Amino acid sequence: MNEIKIFSPATVANVACGFDVLGFCLDTIGDEMTIRKVDKKGIFITKVEGFNLPTETELNVAGVSALAMYEAVNPDCGFEIEIRKNIKPGSGIGSSAASAVGSVFGMNELLGKPFNKTELTAFAIKGEALASQCEHADNLAPAIFGGFTLVKSVSPLEVLQIPVPNNLYATIIHPQIEIKTSEARAILPKQVPLQDVITQWSNFGSLIHALHTNDYPLIKRSLHDVIIEPHRSKLIPYFDDVKQAALKHGALGSGISGSGPSIFSLSEGIEKAKNVEEAMINVYSKTNIKFDTYVCKINTQGIKIIE
Amino acid sequence: MNEIKIFSPATVANVACGFDVLGFCLDTIGDEMTIRKVDKKGIFITKVEGFNLPTETELNVAGVSALAMYEAVNPDCGFEIEIRKNIKPGSGIGSSAASAVGSVFGMNELLGKPFNKTELTAFAIKGEALASQCEHADNLAPAIFGGFTLVKSVSPLEVLQIPVPNNLYATIIHPQIEIKTSEARAILPKQVPLQDVITQWSNFGSLIHALHTNDYPLIKRSLHDVIIEPHRSKLIPYFDDVKQAALKHGALGSGISGSGPSIFSLSEGIEKAKNVEEAMINVYSKTNIKFDTYVCKINTQGIKIIE
Repeated sequence: MNEIKIFSPATVANVACGFDVLGFCLDTIGDEMTIRKVDKKGIFITKVEGFNLPTETELNVAGVSALAMYEAVNPDCGFEIEIRKNIKPGSGIGSSAASAVGSVFGMNELLGKPFNKTELTAFAIKGEALASQCEHADNLAPAIFGGFTLVKSVSPLEVLQIPVPNNLYATIIHPQIEIKTSEARAILPKQVPLQDVITQWSNFGSLIHALHTNDYPLIKRSLHDVIIEPHRSKLIPYFDDVKQAALKHGALGSGISGSGPSIFSLSEGIEKAKNVEEAMINVYSKTNIKFDTYVCKINTQGIKIIE
Repeated sequence: MNEIKIFSPATVANVACGFDVLGFCLDTIGDEMTIRKVDKKGIFITKVEGFNLPTETELNVAGVSALAMYEAVNPDCGFEIEIRKNIKPGSGIGSSAASAVGSVFGMNELLGKPFNKTELTAFAIKGEALASQCEHADNLAPAIFGGFTLVKSVSPLEVLQIPVPNNLYATIIHPQIEIKTSEARAILPKQVPLQDVITQWSNFGSLIHALHTNDYPLIKRSLHDVIIEPHRSKLIPYFDDVKQAALKHGALGSGISGSGPSIFSLSEGIEKAKNVEEAMINVYSKTNIKFDTYVCKINTQGIKIIE
């Protein structure tokens, strides 16, 4: 096998109460990437479609993560990478993570799978760091492992796979506004009240328990963020309206996807997830802001080969 | 049935990474209480043995929680309460909680079990509040439910029962020093660094996952407290020495029990738990501080009838 085509999924990080550690994997929305083994040594980004991204290897997220693996293996061949980018950069649903994992996943397959999923995530962290200026894995891990992941620590890297209730669906609305990563970071407090912190980890522990026990009402009672959302939601116009509309129409919970501007909801069953989509659309339809929406089951497989 | 004798167990609250929400139930150490139905209406503390505690109903933790239930039921009878106190007040292993749950559990049995465990916990909170000047349930819940409990919220009261790995043992050392609750509280910061908070909830979520999956190595990697322990451990002489000795002798983790001064360790299997006990004893034997130690399996039953 000298060429492989893969689907690299979008992901939702933070998930309300799990800031910086929890994430889940989306289905139906993701990048398509072709990785090709070539004689000439090196990593070559030969095509980027969909969005205008650099093709210089060292300036491209997929290129940087590929280089990290390439240097570790030092094979007798090189790799060409073609990217059909469907996830808009800066949308908050793991666009850079999808690129970063796509190249290393594909190369690993072509090399005969020398690396496990955690090792792939570690290579991908190098690419993700190019986009976000820090090493984190909260979008990478769900893209590679699928389902819900808890990144227990980045150094050493440890990823836990949390069970996914069978009928859990995500609804995403992506308002087409730009939030600068620097601004989303600067708005966060460096110190937080101990009382709020206790509430948050109570919710986070409860959510982990609820995912293990398929307890949808408890998922609903746990999906609250009293630490980050009050600050970052200010950067997303109509956030409160969208959230309230989603909850009113049956969502288990709703919050900022990653650092935004996308907003996610979780629902039990596809019907409710679609009702929530309609409710979210209704809010933004009354504004001048363009948007996309997606409804999908939680993707328990993660990144996959399509050809 | 007009009289019942019950065993009301000691408990460990906080459990390193789960400050204010997590707790577990001990075995072999606990108070013995006799609850007796009498014709005369009211709640009467007729005997307190072991430690010098008030027998006025309104000044006794067991009396106050009993009154809360009594007023809710308004029965045609009264109740006498005898307490054989084995858990030293102020030891940090849920002495007041054992008293608070004992009376309501016993009365509930004699009344034909009108209340469920969550309702019993809610009555007991009233008694616990007399001792600690605030309404919390992190010792009450494990005493009533047994095993590990996560108090998701106090108002409304919601208790989650977390699975207990089969071979999990606790070792407790109780150095006979006094820590004033007010001091243990005053030493806590009101604001905590966001970075530490993320570490803590990552550990807490991981611990919940580890308890669900019987993953002892992950329990070990999760039992860390970067928020509370650095402050409160200063109030416990030789805390660091005890903790390091416990870890060196095979403990999965070690930390302050409640607000101290007791120190708990968790171990896989009774042999390790006993080695840890010996290691803890070695540390305090070299000091002038008197101490007690206990080794027991995690008590999954909780409070129980003994006669």
